[in-house]
Amino acid sequence: MSTFRYTGIQVRGERIASIDDTVVREERFSLFMNGTRFLDLVASRENLRELGAGFVLCQGLSRSVDAVSVEGNEIHVSAPLEESCEREIETTGTVGFLCRPPQPVRSGCTITIPEVFAITREIVTDLWRQTGGVHCSVLARNGEVLFRASDVGRHNTVDKVIGYGVLNGFEPAECIVGCTGRQPRDMVIKYANAGVPIIISRAATTDRGIATAHELGITLICFSREERFTVYTHPWRVKGVGPEERPADEGAGKALEGR
Amino acid sequence: MSTFRYTGIQVRGERIASIDDTVVREERFSLFMNGTRFLDLVASRENLRELGAGFVLCQGLSRSVDAVSVEGNEIHVSAPLEESCEREIETTGTVGFLCRPPQPVRSGCTITIPEVFAITREIVTDLWRQTGGVHCSVLARNGEVLFRASDVGRHNTVDKVIGYGVLNGFEPAECIVGCTGRQPRDMVIKYANAGVPIIISRAATTDRGIATAHELGITLICFSREERFTVYTHPWRVKGVGPEERPADEGAGKALEGR
Repeated sequence: MSTFRYTGIQVRGERIASIDDTVVREERFSLFMNGTRFLDLVASRENLRELGAGFVLCQGLSRSVDAVSVEGNEIHVSAPLEESCEREIETTGTVGFLCRPPQPVRSGCTITIPEVFAITREIVTDLWRQTGGVHCSVLARNGEVLFRASDVGRHNTVDKVIGYGVLNGFEPAECIVGCTGRQPRDMVIKYANAGVPIIISRAATTDRGIATAHELGITLICFSREERFTVYTHPWRVKGVGPEERPADEGAGKALEGR
Repeated sequence: MSTFRYTGIQVRGERIASIDDTVVREERFSLFMNGTRFLDLVASRENLRELGAGFVLCQGLSRSVDAVSVEGNEIHVSAPLEESCEREIETTGTVGFLCRPPQPVRSGCTITIPEVFAITREIVTDLWRQTGGVHCSVLARNGEVLFRASDVGRHNTVDKVIGYGVLNGFEPAECIVGCTGRQPRDMVIKYANAGVPIIISRAATTDRGIATAHELGITLICFSREERFTVYTHPWRVKGVGPEERPADEGAGKALEGR
């Protein structure tokens, strides 16, 4: 499967060092049904013919597939569509919306290494251990956990803690989100839309997750577990890890090369 | 967080016993924006006001929220919508479609305990260990792995292996899917739409995942790791675990009580 080498800064106990990490690639593909653009799929660039055929079948759009072809980032499926197939949206995740593009987060908020460890401890709940089926997020500010939310979906947990923040008048630019779940691009865009500058995750990110965090001025910390974590972007917000000074081009919307 | 007690059959090495399991509940909520039904969210029934506020903000639909109220399974958000906010669908998961309802899978396909262990070993890849950021599914038949797919999204991996099956003429009723990811309702519906009778997952399910598998005649095996697994529904397909005989009402569309 297609991966990407990326250099992050790993903190492991007292040790701080560059780490050359293997990150998975996520890409975006447009699915065409009988010649009409139907929706976009975020996926890995392998087995795209199989993905197109399986999506159409597994979503109940058709009971058989006549042909599938792939041209660049377009997947074209020919299939006899079910009659009266209406589209309704039911999501446990994100559904893309074309509104204003997300704006870079410009916040001088910083965090210390012990605070990263403390927030990480707060996201691991008994329920998470007990069921293996829930995610948890926390909203923190000045080293204090303001709110905690659990849900079957990682996207929902982030929506809930940020929703708590907005309903209770906390300034997003001063807040930090901790989350048990993975942080691909759609998750990172949530923090940018909300204006939250620092994210701490137990889990992994993707190439587009890193590129988006870089571009949108978000400090992305992943694989945060007990006494270690990796900072992928904007390390200046983690005291003692990144440069002392907030860089002049922070959050300047500069994309990673080749993204 | 709201959970559900459910009795499965756990196989642990040589030992087969009933196990009283804690399963998380997933529910479906309709999100109304300024009085209009916008989409449905699959989530856990806690912090629904926060979920509504956060979703609208994090998806970039609005920069502020005026009010949120919850009535039963409806979340009503009042917020100044961004101008020219077009909806496009970009998904790493499933998007609900109102086509024909999924039909029960009527397949006499069975599996042995060693075959469950063997398929479980096949879904754990080096890439999964290395990156922590990918899922993997396999399609198996008669103890043989036909195809393996990795992806950033668990939904995509299942679509890919089932897509391989349909493109290569394998009879879904004879196939088994193994998957690293969680199996809530939307995943189970994929197998029903495709006609695959047995699913083996390393991870957890939900109350609606179990109810849907029961109703649609699918044998749902979760927490399958090395020398243990739990069978939640239709155990007669796992030789030596469930009843010898295929029950008369198998896949009869009988829902769990109270679902």
